[in-house]
Amino acid sequence: FTSKLPDVGTTIFSVMSALAAQHQAINLSQGFPDFDTSDELKDLVNMAMQKGFNQYAPMPGLPALREVLAAKVQRLYGTSVNADTEITITPGGTYAIFTAIATCIGPGDEVIIFEPAYDSYIPNVLVNGGVPVLIPLSYPDYYIDWALVKSRITTRTKMIIINTPHNPTGSILKAGDLQMLEHIAELHNLIVLSDEVYEHLVFDGATHESVLRYPNLLKRSFAVFSFGKVFHITGWKMGYCIAPAHLMAEYRKVHQYLCFSVNTPMQHGLAAFLQYPEHYETLPSFFQQKRDHFLSLMKESRFTPLPSHGSYFQLMKYDRISNEGDKDFAVRLTKEAGVASIPVSAFYQDGKDDHVVRFCFAKQDETLQRAAERLVEL
Amino acid sequence: FTSKLPDVGTTIFSVMSALAAQHQAINLSQGFPDFDTSDELKDLVNMAMQKGFNQYAPMPGLPALREVLAAKVQRLYGTSVNADTEITITPGGTYAIFTAIATCIGPGDEVIIFEPAYDSYIPNVLVNGGVPVLIPLSYPDYYIDWALVKSRITTRTKMIIINTPHNPTGSILKAGDLQMLEHIAELHNLIVLSDEVYEHLVFDGATHESVLRYPNLLKRSFAVFSFGKVFHITGWKMGYCIAPAHLMAEYRKVHQYLCFSVNTPMQHGLAAFLQYPEHYETLPSFFQQKRDHFLSLMKESRFTPLPSHGSYFQLMKYDRISNEGDKDFAVRLTKEAGVASIPVSAFYQDGKDDHVVRFCFAKQDETLQRAAERLVEL
Ligand SMILES: CSCCC(=O)C(=O)O
Ligand SMILES: CSCCC(=O)C(=O)O
Repeated sequence: FTSKLPDVGTTIFSVMSALAAQHQAINLSQGFPDFDTSDELKDLVNMAMQKGFNQYAPMPGLPALREVLAAKVQRLYGTSVNADTEITITPGGTYAIFTAIATCIGPGDEVIIFEPAYDSYIPNVLVNGGVPVLIPLSYPDYYIDWALVKSRITTRTKMIIINTPHNPTGSILKAGDLQMLEHIAELHNLIVLSDEVYEHLVFDGATHESVLRYPNLLKRSFAVFSFGKVFHITGWKMGYCIAPAHLMAEYRKVHQYLCFSVNTPMQHGLAAFLQYPEHYETLPSFFQQKRDHFLSLMKESRFTPLPSHGSYFQLMKYDRISNEGDKDFAVRLTKEAGVASIPVSAFYQDGKDDHVVRFCFAKQDETLQRAAERLVEL
Repeated sequence: FTSKLPDVGTTIFSVMSALAAQHQAINLSQGFPDFDTSDELKDLVNMAMQKGFNQYAPMPGLPALREVLAAKVQRLYGTSVNADTEITITPGGTYAIFTAIATCIGPGDEVIIFEPAYDSYIPNVLVNGGVPVLIPLSYPDYYIDWALVKSRITTRTKMIIINTPHNPTGSILKAGDLQMLEHIAELHNLIVLSDEVYEHLVFDGATHESVLRYPNLLKRSFAVFSFGKVFHITGWKMGYCIAPAHLMAEYRKVHQYLCFSVNTPMQHGLAAFLQYPEHYETLPSFFQQKRDHFLSLMKESRFTPLPSHGSYFQLMKYDRISNEGDKDFAVRLTKEAGVASIPVSAFYQDGKDDHVVRFCFAKQDETLQRAAERLVEL
């Protein structure tokens, strides 16, 4: 038996969450909230179950859910997407990303991935026989050097993966980035995979530069979204993908035989919940307050924050002790200070280590307070 | 853009369900019940949601659910499987099958598939660059000709897919089949993918010959199960895979980055529900009564039943009118008689047409009655 993924171990998210549990540390590592989703949403799902909506949904998702998503896209980005042919509901954003890669990438196809990178991208490309082409974001501000991107494109380059708001760094792409991307993707006939699972979590009045705003880009893009991340239901495993009809038709061929369809009562619940735009319009300020709360609590600490413009993550630098790596540092922080984080070197294939760790601030104010108290004492 | 699946269209299940809806026909096509799951199970899921179990489950599934499954395996098959390392919860059986194939199959690897075949197997192999090797089951009794299997094995053969109880035919494998399979798989070092999603639906006192009964077979097998099919919750998209630890470790590398984890509140609900063996021990007689009811109602019809030993499907032959194919026949049946079925030729790559259609009898007695009345009139 030859492994397709010989170098893959347990994801850092599971490792750090397990370590947090083992040491009863406050878990600011794996990205999920420690507060519950709304009672309203839970009741809507329960109502759907009780009404008997417990059998297969249509393969692309419930029409009512896809329609309310199309309305949201129109409202937020001024773009018409066809609910019938251009939206597919998926069991989570990670699945939606895999499926886009499985649809497009075969042996030898090159995929541009920026590092630090969410840790599923590279294995997803490898499972499909593709070749990850790794390009570092700048440090410490984590922007894309488009000249560097151009220099790495070959005739085998098939796809480029972007992620905004960015995990783990909290950076966001600007209009200029999307324009450059549109230009380069068109020139080299690339498919764009845009991971936008933190869609609504953009701060300080900034604009979320979705590929959905750029019709010429969208026509060659898969855009991936998550219900879990934004509605505090990471455990429900619900997301969706938007792509132009010709790409979505191919995507659905894979999805049809990979999972076929997605949880029916939860789709009903979300379709009803999303009738109210305030359910997502309130999210930026909700999470910005979390970020600001955490930052102000950490002012007295010896950590130096790097800017978080979006997502629910805050990077922090800490002075290196001798030659301790950030992984050892994060382990020590968990065991000794009782706060779990994610070492950012885990998102670099070569382990590039700037001694930066990631804290998830999607936590109750009181949790952030307790965590900061411990971190300030260091 | 080159399609990985140029020949794939919309699955016959979606096609026939849509046609049934369009013509207000009784839908005995796509395999799902028209009765609801138990209130107890729904309440358990709701309780888990209300308690706040709405964030990520552990990647392999909730320990409580995996433990109750290990206990079930011990009880039913006398085999110890390790809940920690040998069971993974998946978003449905179809996903579990895809993941096993994605784990093992790369470009040029041959996979033996018996026809008629559930329609995801071939595309799953193709997406991963593999080569489906199609072997017909005998007709009309749908058994495996093991001599034929031996003659089709090459040095590139990597996997063999079995399915018992069998969809669409309702045939089941016997102990002798499993012994032959064990012998051949060992001789040629094959991986076995055993689709057992209709696990409990075996009739007339027959034994379900799971690979889990055969330790020497299990050590090279992935066995796939479905909660949806057996607990009347096809829309929840919940299943699981059992494999020996060394294979499961590779499977989890793919799963970890494909979907990561599965619906948390529904895992809690199922873990509690499965504490009671009567919830699955009553299933064989429940579905056998459905089959017998349908068969007795159809006695007066011009359809000839083929034996259904398991699953929730009943094949029926009907005298061909001139050269009408079974697909046209199934369409006509939907439009004119108001009963939707699945043409069995859809499960043959070359469209082999024995003029047989498949009826799903996982329906309320009253639904079967109304359907049979219409079919008897033909
Ligand atoms: C799928 S577990 C990882 C959750 C997450 O997105 C993160 O922590 O970055
Ligand atoms: C995934 S839809 C198909 C349902 C099914 O298993 C069948 O009808 O055979």
